[in-house]
Amino acid sequence: MRDVAVIGAGMIQFGKMPYYAPAKMGGDAGLMALEQAGIEPTKIEATFCGNIGNSPNLAQRVNGEIGVSGIPAFNHENACASSSAAFRQAFQSVANGLHEYVLVVGVENMTTHIEMGTTSAGPLVLPHGANIESDNGRMMPAVFALLGRQHMAEFGTTAEQFAKVAEKNHKHSVLNPYAQYQKMFTLEEILESRMVCDPLTLLQCCPIGDGAAAVVVTSAENAKKHTTKPVFVEASVLTSGVYKESAEGPARIQGCVRASEEAYETAGVGPDDVDVVELHDCFSIHELVAYEDLGLCPKGEGGRFIDEGLSGYGGEVVVNPSGGLLCKGHPIGATGVAQLVEVVWQLQGVCGERQVPDAKVGLTHNGGGFGPGGELGTMSITIVKT
Amino acid sequence: MRDVAVIGAGMIQFGKMPYYAPAKMGGDAGLMALEQAGIEPTKIEATFCGNIGNSPNLAQRVNGEIGVSGIPAFNHENACASSSAAFRQAFQSVANGLHEYVLVVGVENMTTHIEMGTTSAGPLVLPHGANIESDNGRMMPAVFALLGRQHMAEFGTTAEQFAKVAEKNHKHSVLNPYAQYQKMFTLEEILESRMVCDPLTLLQCCPIGDGAAAVVVTSAENAKKHTTKPVFVEASVLTSGVYKESAEGPARIQGCVRASEEAYETAGVGPDDVDVVELHDCFSIHELVAYEDLGLCPKGEGGRFIDEGLSGYGGEVVVNPSGGLLCKGHPIGATGVAQLVEVVWQLQGVCGERQVPDAKVGLTHNGGGFGPGGELGTMSITIVKT
Repeated sequence: MRDVAVIGAGMIQFGKMPYYAPAKMGGDAGLMALEQAGIEPTKIEATFCGNIGNSPNLAQRVNGEIGVSGIPAFNHENACASSSAAFRQAFQSVANGLHEYVLVVGVENMTTHIEMGTTSAGPLVLPHGANIESDNGRMMPAVFALLGRQHMAEFGTTAEQFAKVAEKNHKHSVLNPYAQYQKMFTLEEILESRMVCDPLTLLQCCPIGDGAAAVVVTSAENAKKHTTKPVFVEASVLTSGVYKESAEGPARIQGCVRASEEAYETAGVGPDDVDVVELHDCFSIHELVAYEDLGLCPKGEGGRFIDEGLSGYGGEVVVNPSGGLLCKGHPIGATGVAQLVEVVWQLQGVCGERQVPDAKVGLTHNGGGFGPGGELGTMSITIVKT
Repeated sequence: MRDVAVIGAGMIQFGKMPYYAPAKMGGDAGLMALEQAGIEPTKIEATFCGNIGNSPNLAQRVNGEIGVSGIPAFNHENACASSSAAFRQAFQSVANGLHEYVLVVGVENMTTHIEMGTTSAGPLVLPHGANIESDNGRMMPAVFALLGRQHMAEFGTTAEQFAKVAEKNHKHSVLNPYAQYQKMFTLEEILESRMVCDPLTLLQCCPIGDGAAAVVVTSAENAKKHTTKPVFVEASVLTSGVYKESAEGPARIQGCVRASEEAYETAGVGPDDVDVVELHDCFSIHELVAYEDLGLCPKGEGGRFIDEGLSGYGGEVVVNPSGGLLCKGHPIGATGVAQLVEVVWQLQGVCGERQVPDAKVGLTHNGGGFGPGGELGTMSITIVKT
């Protein structure tokens, strides 16, 4: 295996854009990534696309938008970690010398009916009779509310501590022009917003939205020809959960513990070395629990970690400088690559007002499918370095 | 890269089974493949699943059915070539030494509403306004009828010659207990069945159906420990079309010409060496044109090839001994792996009454997405040897 680097990253601002065709969204993000990489689209040898609901053959149609055809093109669906799955296959294809330059795109238009006649948001609410757990209310907000309740019972974590995660990420989002929402809220406003699933209030839940993001991947050796700021991929780990493992205490996503341990070992770094993290804060609770699962703080101390401001600017590590899923948005198939885009830009030092000072090691944490039967879902951890 | 082999293959009989859950279908096919391989499910290190409409995280749910979890699991969507895309990634992962034993599953339940509230058949008929070509009737039967008309104009091919493809495949299907339809028809019955899109009559169009198929892939070296009949994968090529290339004469699918040339070169064999082919006969016309695109006969001589019985038992090569998509059925995501299952079984010599004598080299031809904008679709060619 050879070393791999990202040489270009791009994304469109997330939002609700039902008339922005998925292939065009992906194409626009792809062209931006190619422009940053400084290479022509025709240099791309394969395209890997993550998406859950705007298929079929979306990678091929994205290629059509950027003016490329006749190359291998793969479409990946791993629920909310779809484009992380695409990235991992792209990474492997370059690491193993199969391709020199590949494009990875994450795309989701959750609000559109224009291609398939249905929206990608559909699968988030299963029809009655599809699954006994969802029939009884165990949908995404409930899954994470229950995880939060378990954490509260075990470690004395409070509803205010979960809400502080949302307060931080909303604060970060104000400086990110690519975020779906760029608005600050007080802790009180967050706690008093509409209750969705106790203790989760509305401002602690990620929104429905549309978006696309892309990165250009090549070998470390090629990278030096194109940029003075290559970002090297030190580990790309993807695994699935173990059936019913998350039903056992303590409150954690065990797949995250396993995947991050493997990623740290592969990359030769520890949690203390990480400067910037883009983390799958689909709900505020997930971020707090992931502080512990990722080893950023000891088990049970996620509440203290947010209380002391250790996951914000000036803390031990900046988590979700982009505003995270809560504010940047979570167009499902776009999220994994959008996290990489933010971390790559942070390591390149091009983030302007939201720049994490002296960022040298970045990590993305992207989960997919914790809902009904979701203990079998996907967990992806990627570690990059300057 | 190291040599790769298939050591187990399994499938369920295709048919219309709306209450057979997709994960269970995939699990049953997977268990059959594992049993043939003689290995425990827990030996599997990663699962690759092809599917277009029963997502999300189907590979993980198939794993749940076979009693495996906590491993990398990937879901692939490449239209009708979805599980060939899954197979190609699985092949690469073993060839590059990332995994020792992997499972590849193709699944589609086109008739069920039980998981997603919609059927996988939905995407085949785009909603009005989705695409100007499909709005004007250029759906799958029309795409291939136009290709057939072009072939008739250029080479004098007749409607009877296309119908003879269906006559042959229906005849083959009678001996395949896994086929959705196992019924013989006369040439007259085929030609006089309901007209779908001139010259395509109903019995020359593949049906809607449900099914699953699976193969176990490992290194050639491992294979020898488990079976006396390993089937070696000599080439697995996947590419996409070139925009509008199929609009240019002569009548052919140019992506097939490119992919098969690459596959023959990689495998070190030529068309004359191939004993058995599972070919993407979604419509009779596609099979006749693919004889030429695959180099089984010279350009323009597909009509003669079927007239002289050269693609049946006793001919130059047996094409679609399974009955093909026309009769075995075409549950979209299942097809690519189901083609491999048939070819593997033929090379293992376990096909009973439909056994191709002395089959040593097999080829699968699986296309995905020739519809509106489908010139950008997928073409996959795999070559296997005893």
